Amino acid sequence: MESFIEFHSRSSGIYLSVRSVLYRKRTKYQEILVFENDFFGRVLALDNLIMTTTKDEFIYHEMLSHIPMKSHPNPKSILVIGGGDGGTLREVLKYPIDKAYLVEIDEEVINVSKLFFPELSKSFDDRRVNVVIMDAIEWVKKSNEKFDVVLIDSTDPVGIAEGLISESFLENVKKLMNDISVICIQSESPFYHLEILEKIYKTFKSVFSNAYVYTAPIPTYPGGYWSFTISFIGLSVPGIRNQYIIQNLKFYNDEIYKSCFSLPQFLKERIYGIN
Amino acid sequence: MESFIEFHSRSSGIYLSVRSVLYRKRTKYQEILVFENDFFGRVLALDNLIMTTTKDEFIYHEMLSHIPMKSHPNPKSILVIGGGDGGTLREVLKYPIDKAYLVEIDEEVINVSKLFFPELSKSFDDRRVNVVIMDAIEWVKKSNEKFDVVLIDSTDPVGIAEGLISESFLENVKKLMNDISVICIQSESPFYHLEILEKIYKTFKSVFSNAYVYTAPIPTYPGGYWSFTISFIGLSVPGIRNQYIIQNLKFYNDEIYKSCFSLPQFLKERIYGIN
Repeated sequence: MESFIEFHSRSSGIYLSVRSVLYRKRTKYQEILVFENDFFGRVLALDNLIMTTTKDEFIYHEMLSHIPMKSHPNPKSILVIGGGDGGTLREVLKYPIDKAYLVEIDEEVINVSKLFFPELSKSFDDRRVNVVIMDAIEWVKKSNEKFDVVLIDSTDPVGIAEGLISESFLENVKKLMNDISVICIQSESPFYHLEILEKIYKTFKSVFSNAYVYTAPIPTYPGGYWSFTISFIGLSVPGIRNQYIIQNLKFYNDEIYKSCFSLPQFLKERIYGIN
Repeated sequence: MESFIEFHSRSSGIYLSVRSVLYRKRTKYQEILVFENDFFGRVLALDNLIMTTTKDEFIYHEMLSHIPMKSHPNPKSILVIGGGDGGTLREVLKYPIDKAYLVEIDEEVINVSKLFFPELSKSFDDRRVNVVIMDAIEWVKKSNEKFDVVLIDSTDPVGIAEGLISESFLENVKKLMNDISVICIQSESPFYHLEILEKIYKTFKSVFSNAYVYTAPIPTYPGGYWSFTISFIGLSVPGIRNQYIIQNLKFYNDEIYKSCFSLPQFLKERIYGIN
């Protein structure tokens, strides 16, 4: 394999040359591919969609984690749904939390991350971490755990991850959330997947009473521009609610928190329906 | 030609399929290519670098124009350097201005835009517009015009556009600027061209005493993430200073103005040298 193209539409996409393929395997759930690219470093693709790269993973993982974590007055218990590469776990463990659960359907993603992405997967051994290999849809039905922050770090919500944006799944997640808690999901590209983003926003608003969309620039994701949808229980609006200072972040800072909720006009009109 | 790849580094880039090539010509200055893509519509490339597309041009043109225009208390006279596609001109003409000069080195870009990008080029016929076909480096040496807002809408500052970020050129531009005025330049990708961005920022700060960087997500530009550098004469910091309400914008709104100056941590440290 000399080159990799992820198609974002039928006629556009990202091109990466492939220095070498490090791993390729079809699991029960998906095809896992790891390759080396001279600019982005190691690239993890699931079903030929780029999930993360050494060079730009910090943006996605910091923005999925720190916006919700800073929104909670004192986040102690965290649930990560998906996130088998470990990057989201790494970020939430930077806070003085008591426990983190990670519920990942495909154990092979964790194994691959431990082998090829040591900077992402280093938190799996932390004593506060509980890894559950199971379909999250089943796990949330049975669990009695309670959480302050829930992060849905899934693949695109088609195929195996489609159920993670359904109302019934989110109702079950809600039962595991504390009276004051925050839930956040990666909600696709505002350019390429506006209908999916709109659907996620509406479902979140319906299940959790409120919802807000924020964005971040992620070079290897479709359009280089990504969205996240966040809802609050027992809290009304976005806002920095704890004073934990997390060192050595490369993307997040408190100014980014305040600015990332400002949406471009086309998106504001489409999502919030206002001018 | 069935596909087009713009390389952003030697091993990464954007892939677009080509429905049909509409125009291709080598002028004295560069190779102009116009093709049709099913997702982005018409694509204008100069020396194989994408300059603008029907689908996402609004982001670049609105962000290069409205941030500076809203920063000035009463922008009446505008200079656009480069910008032969007409998109920046279209945006500034939405304000009640008295005059706009556009100084473009390559007349063929204007002709091509009139032929293939009617939505971009419709402002060339406005009675307030003065089009000068000339190297801007020569023009600014001789001109006696004065401007409230100067917008440098150039190709990448290598090759023919390299002189547009030199200190001597900017000193000559400064002589054409009013006591209260604003100058803004597109300053490349924060992911791919951080050294160029840093150089532009330092040169702007040195020539105009202050400089600020803001960003916008632009899908067809390297990394999907673009920067602009702005300096103020007779004004100290960014701020909305006029109450003109411009209708029908698709990207800009006043919240975007306030948020676009918030830089990610890596960029803030690199550009402003602070934590």
